[in-house]
Amino acid sequence: MTKHIRIAIAGPRGNMGTEAVKLTDRTEHFELCAVIDSKNNGSRLKDIAGMPAVDVPVYTDINQCFQENTIDVLIDLTNPETGRKHLEASLAHGVSPVVGTTGFTEADIEKLSREAEQKQIGVVIAPNFAIGAVLMMKFAKMAAAYMPDVEIMEMHHDRKLDAPSGTAIKTAELIKENRASRRQGHENETESLAGARGADIDGMKIHSVRLPGLVAHQQVMFGGAGQTLTIKHDSINRESFMPGVQLAVEHVVEHKELVYGLENIM
Amino acid sequence: MTKHIRIAIAGPRGNMGTEAVKLTDRTEHFELCAVIDSKNNGSRLKDIAGMPAVDVPVYTDINQCFQENTIDVLIDLTNPETGRKHLEASLAHGVSPVVGTTGFTEADIEKLSREAEQKQIGVVIAPNFAIGAVLMMKFAKMAAAYMPDVEIMEMHHDRKLDAPSGTAIKTAELIKENRASRRQGHENETESLAGARGADIDGMKIHSVRLPGLVAHQQVMFGGAGQTLTIKHDSINRESFMPGVQLAVEHVVEHKELVYGLENIM
Amino acid sequence: MTKHIRIAIAGPRGNMGTEAVKLTDRTEHFELCAVIDSKNNGSRLKDIAGMPAVDVPVYTDINQCFQENTIDVLIDLTNPETGRKHLEASLAHGVSPVVGTTGFTEADIEKLSREAEQKQIGVVIAPNFAIGAVLMMKFAKMAAAYMPDVEIMEMHHDRKLDAPSGTAIKTAELIKENRASRRQGHENETESLAGARGADIDGMKIHSVRLPGLVAHQQVMFGGAGQTLTIKHDSINRESFMPGVQLAVEHVVEHKELVYGLENIM
Amino acid sequence: MTKHIRIAIAGPRGNMGTEAVKLTDRTEHFELCAVIDSKNNGSRLKDIAGMPAVDVPVYTDINQCFQENTIDVLIDLTNPETGRKHLEASLAHGVSPVVGTTGFTEADIEKLSREAEQKQIGVVIAPNFAIGAVLMMKFAKMAAAYMPDVEIMEMHHDRKLDAPSGTAIKTAELIKENRASRRQGHENETESLAGARGADIDGMKIHSVRLPGLVAHQQVMFGGAGQTLTIKHDSINRESFMPGVQLAVEHVVEHKELVYGLENIM
Repeated sequence: MTKHIRIAIAGPRGNMGTEAVKLTDRTEHFELCAVIDSKNNGSRLKDIAGMPAVDVPVYTDINQCFQENTIDVLIDLTNPETGRKHLEASLAHGVSPVVGTTGFTEADIEKLSREAEQKQIGVVIAPNFAIGAVLMMKFAKMAAAYMPDVEIMEMHHDRKLDAPSGTAIKTAELIKENRASRRQGHENETESLAGARGADIDGMKIHSVRLPGLVAHQQVMFGGAGQTLTIKHDSINRESFMPGVQLAVEHVVEHKELVYGLENIM
Repeated sequence: MTKHIRIAIAGPRGNMGTEAVKLTDRTEHFELCAVIDSKNNGSRLKDIAGMPAVDVPVYTDINQCFQENTIDVLIDLTNPETGRKHLEASLAHGVSPVVGTTGFTEADIEKLSREAEQKQIGVVIAPNFAIGAVLMMKFAKMAAAYMPDVEIMEMHHDRKLDAPSGTAIKTAELIKENRASRRQGHENETESLAGARGADIDGMKIHSVRLPGLVAHQQVMFGGAGQTLTIKHDSINRESFMPGVQLAVEHVVEHKELVYGLENIM
Repeated sequence: MTKHIRIAIAGPRGNMGTEAVKLTDRTEHFELCAVIDSKNNGSRLKDIAGMPAVDVPVYTDINQCFQENTIDVLIDLTNPETGRKHLEASLAHGVSPVVGTTGFTEADIEKLSREAEQKQIGVVIAPNFAIGAVLMMKFAKMAAAYMPDVEIMEMHHDRKLDAPSGTAIKTAELIKENRASRRQGHENETESLAGARGADIDGMKIHSVRLPGLVAHQQVMFGGAGQTLTIKHDSINRESFMPGVQLAVEHVVEHKELVYGLENIM
Repeated sequence: MTKHIRIAIAGPRGNMGTEAVKLTDRTEHFELCAVIDSKNNGSRLKDIAGMPAVDVPVYTDINQCFQENTIDVLIDLTNPETGRKHLEASLAHGVSPVVGTTGFTEADIEKLSREAEQKQIGVVIAPNFAIGAVLMMKFAKMAAAYMPDVEIMEMHHDRKLDAPSGTAIKTAELIKENRASRRQGHENETESLAGARGADIDGMKIHSVRLPGLVAHQQVMFGGAGQTLTIKHDSINRESFMPGVQLAVEHVVEHKELVYGLENIM
C-alpha cells in the first residue's frame, strides 16, 4: 500500500508553489494540511486570489504551523534565505523537508547531513526538480567516460540575462568528473569572428542561443569517429518540476538521511 | 603500464574486419600477429588487393593459426556460423575471443558461459560495437523508469529492407524491462490515414523513416508534463564500431568470464 | 507614415480572440473600437472576467456595432458558421474582414472573391495565422521540386485526437503540386511491425508522434544523395498567431480583393 | 525529348571531379567526351589508377581538347586560377562552361556577363553545388523578412580550421538583405564566460560546433513570439553536389547568359 503523506507547502503563491499545491491536490496519497506564506496569516488558501480551490489554513509562522498540525513533509519553494530557516524549523519539529532552493555551501550540506543522521530525519535538497534535466546531466556525465569530445548548446528565451545558463555550467562540471582535461577541435583552428567557437570550460565548448519562442532547452552532443550521441532536454513550463517534487517527497519519508541533488535518488 | 596484447583477426576483408586491421595497426599496445580468411591461405595480408600495408600471415585454418602463433585475443568479424566455430577453436586453444556476430540463443550463451568460467577464459560476444548506440540504449532503459511515455524514431538510408530496424526493436525491449505495459496517446485517438501513429510495441510507438542521404540514426523521445527528453545516435560509417572493439579487447584479457553485450562492460 | 486602422474583434473571449485584443492594444497604429461577443451585450470589455483592461463596448449584434462605430477591419476569430455571417455583414457595411476560420469551399471562395472585387473591399481568409507554419509549408513545396524524396514527422501533445494533423495533410497536398507521384524507400521493403513506415500520401510518408510535454511541432525532411534538408516548425502557444493577424490586417486595408491563405500575402 | 549534351570535365581526379565523371556516365542524355587533367596527357581516363572505367581521352591542353572534340559543356572542378583560364578558353571556343570554383570578384562577374551576352553563350559559375545548402540559404533569406530574430549554428568535423564556416557567413549576408540591423537578446545580457553568445554579424549570432563524427551541417533558427522555425542542412559526402551540377549543365545549354550562384536557376 502506498503510504499516506501529510504535507505543508511553503511559498504557495510562487509559480512552483502553486504547481505543488495542485500536485498534492491530485495525488491520492498526498494530503495538503497547511501552507506557509509570507503574508495572509489566518486566511484559508482558497480565499487568496489566484490560488486553487483547496481549503487549508495559511500560516506566516512555520513553528505555529508545525505545532497546530501533524506534518510529515515540508515542501519548501521559497528562496535561499527563507528555505534555510524553514529547513531548520523542520528538523526541530521532526518534519522531513524537501527544499528546492540553492545557495547551500558544501560546509552547510555536511553540517545538515550530520544533523539529519543524528535526528534520524530524511532531508532532500534539490536545486533542480526537472527529472528530464537531471537525467540529461546524469547521462552526459556517464557518456563522457567513453566519448570525451563534447559540446553543449543551451537555448533559452531572449529575456534571459546570463549566458551560459546555470544548467550548462553544472553539466560541464559533472562531465569534468569523468573526462580528463583536453583541448578540442583542430590544434590550429582560428576564429575569423570572435566568439564563434563559444565559451570554454576545460576544453569543452558551450554555446548559448537566445531567441523569442524558446523557453528552456539544452543539448549535449558527443562526437566520436563516425558517430555522434546527443542528449536533449526541452522544458516549456513549471509543471515539468512536479514529478521530481513527488519523487523527493516519496523518498524523504522512507530514508533517514540527507540527499543533495535529485540525481542521487534516481 | 598498458598491457601488450597479441591479436588475430578473422574476416579481414569485410568492412569491419578491415577497420579492425587498421585499429590494431594504429594502437600502440595492440599487435596484429595473423589474420584468418576464408581464402588466400599462405599469403601475406599486405599482398591482398585492398588490404592495408600490414605484413602478417594469412590462414584459412584457425587451428593452424593458433598453433603457429601466440595469440591473446581473436577478433571475429565473420558471420554467425563461422563465428561460432572460431569461438570454439579459441576456447580450445586458450585464446580469448571477441565475437561481433549475432545468432546466439540464450541456451548457447549459458553453455558458453559455463565453459568460459570452467576454463577461466574471458569471452566477449557483442551484437553491436557502436559505443554511442549502446549508450543510447542504456540511457533509454534508465529514463523509462521515470518517464514511461516514449516513442522511437529510427531513420535510415532508403536501401534498407526491413522496418523497424533491429536496433529500434532491441531498444524497445530494453525499455520494457523498466516500464509497465501501457497504452500511450489519447484513449480515443484515431488514424485518418493508416500507419500514422507508427508500429506498436507494448504501447510504445516506433516510426521508421527512409530517405536517401541518411545513413543510420535513431532518436528516442520521452515525454512528461511540460518537458521532453531526447536521446539521439547518428552513425555515418563503420569506423564508429572501433572504440567498442578496442574496449572489448582490453576487457577480455582482464576478465575470466563471458560477457554478452557491450553494455555490460560499459 | 503607417496608416491608422480602426478595428473590431469578434470572439474576444476565445484564446486567439484575447491575444488579438492584446495585439491591438500594444500596436500603435491599431485602434480597437469595439468587440462582438455572443453574450455580454452592452458591457464594456474591461468589465468581463479574464479580459484585458481595454475599455471598449461589447455588441452581440454585429450590424449594430458597424452602425454605431466607424470600423476599417473586422478580425473574426469565432467559428466557421458565425465567421461566415460576420464576413457577409462586413461586406454589406464596407468593412474589410480578416477571417481566421476554416470550412469555406472552393465555390464559396470564388463567389466571395467576385463580391469583394465588385464592392472593391479587401478580404483575407486564413485557416492558419502562424507565420512560421505558413513559411514551413511554402518552403516544403518549393524544396520538393528539387528533392522529391520527403517524409513528414508531426509531433503533438498526447491529448490530440486525430492523426495525422491537419497541417501535415495540408503540407503533403502542397508538396504534391510540385512533386510527381512516386514510391519511396526500397521497392522490396517490408514492415515486420505494421505501421512502422507511417501513413502514405502519394508515396510520401507521414509519422505522428504523441507525447505529453509536446505542444505542436512539425518537421519536413527531404533526402537526396549525400544530403538531407529539414524544415521544422515549433509552436508553443497562441501568441504565435498574432504576427500573422497583424500582417493580414495591414494587407487587407491596402488591397481591394479577396486573398485565401496567409501564404499568398507573404 | 531531353537534349543530348556532350561534356568535357576538367579536374577528373579531384573528389568532385570523380563524382562528376560518374554523373555523366549514369545520366542517359549526358555524354562524356574528354577530360582535362594537369597530367596524364594522351592517356585514356580508364587507365588512370582510381578512375572509373570510362574510356575517353585525357588532355592537358584545353584548347587541343576543344579543337579535337565537339563539346557543348565544360564542367570545371579545378581551382580558382585554372578555372578562370578554362572559362576563357571555353568562351573562345563557343563551349558553355559550368564552373564550380570561387574567387571571382563582382567586377569579374560583370565583365564575363557582358562577354557571355555578346557571344550568346550560357555560363554558370556556382561556388556551391549542394542543392540542399542553396535551398537552405534561399529559405533563410525569405524567412528573415517575417522573423528577424535569427541564430545560425554550423557544425563540422573537428579537422576544420576556420570558424565560422564560409556557408554560415554567406547565409548571414543573404539574411542581411532582408533584415534591418538589430541587436538580439536581452539589452542587459552578460556573458559569464566569454564567447558563450557566439560570433556576431549585424546582431545575428553564429555558433560553430566542431566534433569528430560530424561532417558538414548547418541549422538556421528563427524565433518569434510563441514559435520557432528551423531550417537545417546535413551533408555527408561529395555526392551531394551532383544534382546541382546536373541542374547547371541542363540550364547552361538553354540560356545564353551568365548566371552566378545556383540559387538563381532554382
